[in-house]
Amino acid sequence: MIDPLHIFFHPRGVAVIGASSNPTKLSYGVLHNLASHGYPGPIYPVNPKGGEMMGLKVYPAVAEVPGPVELAVIVLSADRAVRALEECGQRSIRAAVIIASGFGELGAGGREREAQLREVARQYGMRFIGPNCVGVIDTYAPIDTTFVRTMPKQGGIGFVSHSGAVCGGTMDWASAVGVGFSRIISLGNQADVDVADALESLAADPHTRVVAAYIEGLPDGRRFVEEAARLTPHKPLVVLKAGRTISGMRAVASHTGALAGADRAFQAACRKARALPVETLEELVDAAIALAYREVPSGPRVAVLTNAGGPAAVGADALDRQGLRLADLSEETQARLGEVCPPGTMTGNPVDMLGGPHPDQYAEALGILLDAPEVDAVMVVFVPQAITPPAEVAEPVGQAADGACKPVLCCISGGGGIRAAARTLHAHSVPHYLTPARAALGLGVLWRYAWVRTRPVPEPEPVARVDRERALALMRAAQAAGEQVLDPQAGAEVAQAYGLQVPPSGLAATVEEAAALAERVGYPVALKLVAPGVVHKADVGGVALGLEDAGAVRTASAQAVGPGPALSLSKGGAEGERVFVQRMAPKGLEVIVGAQRDAQFGPLVMFGLGGVTVEVLRDVTFRLAPLGEAEARGMVAETAAGRLLVGVRGQPPGDVDAVVEALRRVAQLMADLPEVAEVDLNPLIVGSVGEGAWAVDVRIVLSGKHQ
Amino acid sequence: MIDPLHIFFHPRGVAVIGASSNPTKLSYGVLHNLASHGYPGPIYPVNPKGGEMMGLKVYPAVAEVPGPVELAVIVLSADRAVRALEECGQRSIRAAVIIASGFGELGAGGREREAQLREVARQYGMRFIGPNCVGVIDTYAPIDTTFVRTMPKQGGIGFVSHSGAVCGGTMDWASAVGVGFSRIISLGNQADVDVADALESLAADPHTRVVAAYIEGLPDGRRFVEEAARLTPHKPLVVLKAGRTISGMRAVASHTGALAGADRAFQAACRKARALPVETLEELVDAAIALAYREVPSGPRVAVLTNAGGPAAVGADALDRQGLRLADLSEETQARLGEVCPPGTMTGNPVDMLGGPHPDQYAEALGILLDAPEVDAVMVVFVPQAITPPAEVAEPVGQAADGACKPVLCCISGGGGIRAAARTLHAHSVPHYLTPARAALGLGVLWRYAWVRTRPVPEPEPVARVDRERALALMRAAQAAGEQVLDPQAGAEVAQAYGLQVPPSGLAATVEEAAALAERVGYPVALKLVAPGVVHKADVGGVALGLEDAGAVRTASAQAVGPGPALSLSKGGAEGERVFVQRMAPKGLEVIVGAQRDAQFGPLVMFGLGGVTVEVLRDVTFRLAPLGEAEARGMVAETAAGRLLVGVRGQPPGDVDAVVEALRRVAQLMADLPEVAEVDLNPLIVGSVGEGAWAVDVRIVLSGKHQ
Repeated sequence: MIDPLHIFFHPRGVAVIGASSNPTKLSYGVLHNLASHGYPGPIYPVNPKGGEMMGLKVYPAVAEVPGPVELAVIVLSADRAVRALEECGQRSIRAAVIIASGFGELGAGGREREAQLREVARQYGMRFIGPNCVGVIDTYAPIDTTFVRTMPKQGGIGFVSHSGAVCGGTMDWASAVGVGFSRIISLGNQADVDVADALESLAADPHTRVVAAYIEGLPDGRRFVEEAARLTPHKPLVVLKAGRTISGMRAVASHTGALAGADRAFQAACRKARALPVETLEELVDAAIALAYREVPSGPRVAVLTNAGGPAAVGADALDRQGLRLADLSEETQARLGEVCPPGTMTGNPVDMLGGPHPDQYAEALGILLDAPEVDAVMVVFVPQAITPPAEVAEPVGQAADGACKPVLCCISGGGGIRAAARTLHAHSVPHYLTPARAALGLGVLWRYAWVRTRPVPEPEPVARVDRERALALMRAAQAAGEQVLDPQAGAEVAQAYGLQVPPSGLAATVEEAAALAERVGYPVALKLVAPGVVHKADVGGVALGLEDAGAVRTASAQAVGPGPALSLSKGGAEGERVFVQRMAPKGLEVIVGAQRDAQFGPLVMFGLGGVTVEVLRDVTFRLAPLGEAEARGMVAETAAGRLLVGVRGQPPGDVDAVVEALRRVAQLMADLPEVAEVDLNPLIVGSVGEGAWAVDVRIVLSGKHQ
Repeated sequence: MIDPLHIFFHPRGVAVIGASSNPTKLSYGVLHNLASHGYPGPIYPVNPKGGEMMGLKVYPAVAEVPGPVELAVIVLSADRAVRALEECGQRSIRAAVIIASGFGELGAGGREREAQLREVARQYGMRFIGPNCVGVIDTYAPIDTTFVRTMPKQGGIGFVSHSGAVCGGTMDWASAVGVGFSRIISLGNQADVDVADALESLAADPHTRVVAAYIEGLPDGRRFVEEAARLTPHKPLVVLKAGRTISGMRAVASHTGALAGADRAFQAACRKARALPVETLEELVDAAIALAYREVPSGPRVAVLTNAGGPAAVGADALDRQGLRLADLSEETQARLGEVCPPGTMTGNPVDMLGGPHPDQYAEALGILLDAPEVDAVMVVFVPQAITPPAEVAEPVGQAADGACKPVLCCISGGGGIRAAARTLHAHSVPHYLTPARAALGLGVLWRYAWVRTRPVPEPEPVARVDRERALALMRAAQAAGEQVLDPQAGAEVAQAYGLQVPPSGLAATVEEAAALAERVGYPVALKLVAPGVVHKADVGGVALGLEDAGAVRTASAQAVGPGPALSLSKGGAEGERVFVQRMAPKGLEVIVGAQRDAQFGPLVMFGLGGVTVEVLRDVTFRLAPLGEAEARGMVAETAAGRLLVGVRGQPPGDVDAVVEALRRVAQLMADLPEVAEVDLNPLIVGSVGEGAWAVDVRIVLSGKHQ
């Protein structure tokens, strides 16, 4: 694997453009960190004032820097950064970190300046990180181009963040509790290097065991998914994405001007990429330390070892909510525990040693639980009581966990001596948490990664029997007629071109045409009014179902059907009004198969319970298109619609294969035809096994302004 | 209001039975805390050895204690506690705290010992807290009967806990970050004084502003609900209940032997009591400090003031998930902010002052936001960066928040100097949080309390037109016949006795009886096989619907209907087989109205989408019976069934009033008839407005072993 950002971490020579000797300035901090955090190559401060800083000769211009220099850190203000980048380009520097803010995050003017940076980079073949960022750190290279005071110690977490403050806050916490990182990449506005580049780089980095990413917007959501999918079979990826709610979207917009995708698209993207989404900053770090320190469990059976029944019970609830459960300890294990634990210990699970066991008893009991074949992971919960300081428990717990291949996590709560205990545990690769629920989350993430890692990479094969040309022709005809929503007949024909099963149908402009058409498609038939501006036909009564003969068709065509616009074609119909005549599909469960195009992640396919209740029940799930068969089956399985299809209470099971086929074909249509903005098959009527599924109402919206 | 636990906090004289001079013993800690944490009355150590401890004369027996003594703290081991309690009774001491473990939490033997404690207490008219507890604290009295090292400072939080470790851990944290408490009550096994007593006590305590409770089991769930409902109009109640999942229930069972109620019953209880349930220990304290320090907001509009866009965006997402939203700042507010904030500040919301604003700028901007009429609450998010230490921001933020009637909460994250900042904020009654999501939870709980507090106390009036005697007679007849599940006809008649609308029906034992019955009830009819052991009739094909005449009834009665047991009555039916003949109800939406009896909280009513899909869609909600009209309406409103009843897509709205009536009548039935274990109306068929709702399948299970 090639690291596209290799040069940012291993440059032969770094120039600091705008270096300052004033310790209150960021530009001082950058030079200081580079010089004092171990970077082995030459450092060239650049400042028109010249002179010397921190024992280093200062060059008045980057052009005058003598030796090889491969990375520039630009700490000038925004208005001078473009010119500086250009000078770096002229000096053949191929990589730059641009710290300054005052770009895209400010709106239109700033975006223009950002475009200038990109143009300069293109011109000179450079890559740059930022602007509006904190810089990068590699603790192994080592190199630190940031102005953040403390450099974290070495460790397995690769951290990527759009927000500099999230980097800063995380590093501040990390140094207090002794958590190590491999690399930290602060992306800022990601005008050039983006999250996908960072994932590719961390995938190649041998020291990174887990990637934790804080992201706001994704300029190229598809590439993010691709890079993430390449990463996650080897290294877990935990993602916190801001801007997933209305308020959050607003906050992100004012922050970096990134376009935050709809939450369901992001969830679908994580699913495809096998990334592990989290919702808060503490979940991001809680998950990262678990994944960095410990292997995944081989099963969901957890032993809880504690001196405090209450917190252990809260932890057990939290484990259950994570999909884990308490292990059933064998008699043998309980007997062994009885030998080492204090008298009165409850050797069931949780193993409650009550009050103040001796620290060694923690170690011995932990050893026994790690040996027990019925235990897949151990959560240690210690609440400081009068006698034992936390750090004295942390050390033996850490030692007992050394080399164990089962996950061991530890919750030590309270106020005093916690950080020393945390540092001790982390030194033994045991993740420390302040509360049992957070420890349970750490273990839950390990368990989820165990699952998603083994899920086969979906590589959807294109579906067969697709007439793309026919579909395109139908859409062009609609566009030529100025229609943005295809009429039901055109919709049905596009669906048919993509191999979906639709009942015979046609459009009629007069009552007699309708009657003739009904004879041709076969009874019973359904009639639907086709009038400009009528979206939900059932709302206005423009639907008549189950008509059994020509008389019924004539009557329905000629009369008002319920309240609202008449299905009136007796006088040739109002302007543009026609009636859609379709043979009734067999009875079956009504599901919805839909698709839309997300601005960041592209086409998204939806499945759920259909018919008039779809908005009410909200039983829907989403995936990115195209869609493999296993993925489509997964969609069906996780919905109530899918459970109904399996057959409840004496009803025959539905044709799940036909639904899977329909989902794959709609996904293929979206992938093939960028002209299509939305597809709705609502309902798709699913017959019993072997009977197929019928798309009786196909709504296709073309790109552009929606009607 | 009378405080039932007054004497525990204000005793005239305390005896410490089993006081020890050995500093490694709990019994030393208890005496030490009583003596050194400010208790103003006389203290009498009791120990057969006699002598002197901490300058206090030690009495060899409690009988020999001279002066008035109203409280005993018993720190002897379990086997000696019963005798000691008896001696206290003989000495006319009316209150005791029993610290020792070794009782009900150990199983049957321990429960017996616990019963002995209760018997002694009854005999001498005593109340006692414990056993297996840490003791009680009142920071204002003051008195501290615990052995926990630090006594928290004075404050508004009343803390009740079944778990001593949860008390200890919370106090440890609280003293580190300067959070104050009014009272701490560690209940242990609550063999006598229970959570309900503690709520009553804290309701009466003038220093308690908010009650935070950690509970495991409730011996009397109904009384808990009553006391909580009395408390919550005046003081908020936050509850963490362990044992709400399968694993958690198991952990609680092994911990204190308490019976953990089903989660849905607990949720319904919280709703009735207007309590605020939380899921983790950090949520318990996060919610408690918000409620202790700040008034509720008068609306959901939040301003976020920050120096860090990323964490603010995460906070905005979290606010949204709490039902809050970002305020739209007026141009005037933004202009005022522009005058005091650093250049480059984004004065939209979040107000992002970027990098390192001067601490005074926090104060000034906060003042402006608190003045703004479009802002209901302010969340300050500060991420320590290179320049400003957290405590320097905390002080001006605290000052600006002093006296503000709008909530102000503050998130300061990172690792260094956080606790000093937290103490500073708490001294100004500004709750401090380590992450934006936790601050959002604090504000969300304030907002939820604003809502629930104004909800009228449900005081359900009994429903009219109920024939309880008739229902009782039907049940007694079933019991006499050895039936635990009423047959459909008896079920229908009980329902009718409770004023529910049921179609005319009867039971037939032969084909001819069935035909005659059908003539009488009127066509079309439904037939249902009634055979011992057949629970879900549709599963086995024992149902025939929409029979239009006597011929059809005869055929259906005589033939097998579908697979499974035959609806065969041609030869008089198999042993006990009959057929239930019922006029078909009009068409309508199928909902379920159900009820069951929870071991802790009593009768529980359920509503949701019905028919065969009830298990699949799981669209159900629960309330405790009896049920007020507003509560019943609330149940309908929060389900998909309710949204469907409102009428979707051209369908006429359903008769919600009839559903509300049915819910109230089923609730009344459960409240009136303890003999009934379960009721299921599935489906209740709901007609259009004014048409009523029909209970077509009434299943009533009597108490005892269920079939």
